[in-house]
Amino acid sequence: MSQFEITRQNRVSRVPDRGHYDEETIYNIIDEALICHVGLIQDDQPVVIPTLHARKDNNILLHGSTKSRLMQYAQSGQNICVTITLVDGLVLARSVFNHSMNYRSVVLFGRGEVVPDEEKMECLKQFTDRLLPGRWDDARQPTAPELKATAIVSIPIELASAKVRVGPPKDEVEDYQLPVWAGVLPIKQQVLPPQDDPQLAHDIVVPDYIRAYVSNR
Amino acid sequence: MSQFEITRQNRVSRVPDRGHYDEETIYNIIDEALICHVGLIQDDQPVVIPTLHARKDNNILLHGSTKSRLMQYAQSGQNICVTITLVDGLVLARSVFNHSMNYRSVVLFGRGEVVPDEEKMECLKQFTDRLLPGRWDDARQPTAPELKATAIVSIPIELASAKVRVGPPKDEVEDYQLPVWAGVLPIKQQVLPPQDDPQLAHDIVVPDYIRAYVSNR
Repeated sequence: MSQFEITRQNRVSRVPDRGHYDEETIYNIIDEALICHVGLIQDDQPVVIPTLHARKDNNILLHGSTKSRLMQYAQSGQNICVTITLVDGLVLARSVFNHSMNYRSVVLFGRGEVVPDEEKMECLKQFTDRLLPGRWDDARQPTAPELKATAIVSIPIELASAKVRVGPPKDEVEDYQLPVWAGVLPIKQQVLPPQDDPQLAHDIVVPDYIRAYVSNR
Repeated sequence: MSQFEITRQNRVSRVPDRGHYDEETIYNIIDEALICHVGLIQDDQPVVIPTLHARKDNNILLHGSTKSRLMQYAQSGQNICVTITLVDGLVLARSVFNHSMNYRSVVLFGRGEVVPDEEKMECLKQFTDRLLPGRWDDARQPTAPELKATAIVSIPIELASAKVRVGPPKDEVEDYQLPVWAGVLPIKQQVLPPQDDPQLAHDIVVPDYIRAYVSNR
């Protein structure tokens, strides 16, 4: 199993047994999350911007308007941090101090590279298919001017770590006798039934790939 | 309605009609979200760390081990960015280019102030009650050594903006005639039924405030 190097920058120092550095754990978290939070520096000020992402091998893909602050920064090749977090549950211990969350997060570091025009179509297909398999072939695909207005940046992952907490609460030995309910409230991001566009033509029904997507989530 | 000042730093420049600067919109998003993503700078590198938060008036509260990287940075009073994102749906347009998401996000800026020991208990109550009303009075409350090991930072919000997208897709005029389903797949963070700690004593049942919390979500 391939591992990322462990350095001072990506080492999980708090609760180190929650740290993971293998590609499989890290890629699975990246692929399951809908969005990421991108960290950049502007005028000595940290700025965090939420955005959609995709992954292609060991690269994170970001896309957006060529005019956006995030894309202009990402295209400049400066240091970037991308953090992805999945919230899995509230962990209710007998003591307030030992309350926690179940989660899976990835923090990764790299520098953006501009994706040239001729590769943009393939990357957008990657974004669309990842978000909703089947959608790319059904929707109207991008025109040349639309491709031109879309910036895509690929960030080779240089360093990464995952931090994962699973399972029930861990209380102090003497607290287990307290008459307090303890356990986990699981949390899940659910996709609800599709809502038609009010302007949808009356003869167009929800396609099978969307029905399948909703029922599998 | 009280508004945050609009500057180059917090102005929503891409799709400006999605920008909001009033306290009500901003505070509601902060209060609904379980977690935030905190941006900081370490060795000229942006770093983004997910964590729980609470709000007290115009201050964001963060807490953690006194030894954690995030809390040490937050306590130092350096510039910080806190970003909060609620994902509300996938917006499926007839064209790939006009696909979007419904979301509510807040980006805010400030500098941390150490919360002194004598105010920590009140802040932890704020965290716990926000996360799960009723839990503070039920669980075993923090001891003096536990309080000592917990750092709490208050970040007065200096600048903030919200960005909100709601509603159906917006397609190009000529695309409305395409035979493509368009609409929204709503997304919601759901709390699932409680799972007992395997070490729970047999005579302890799920309390009413937890049942109410799950059914209201």
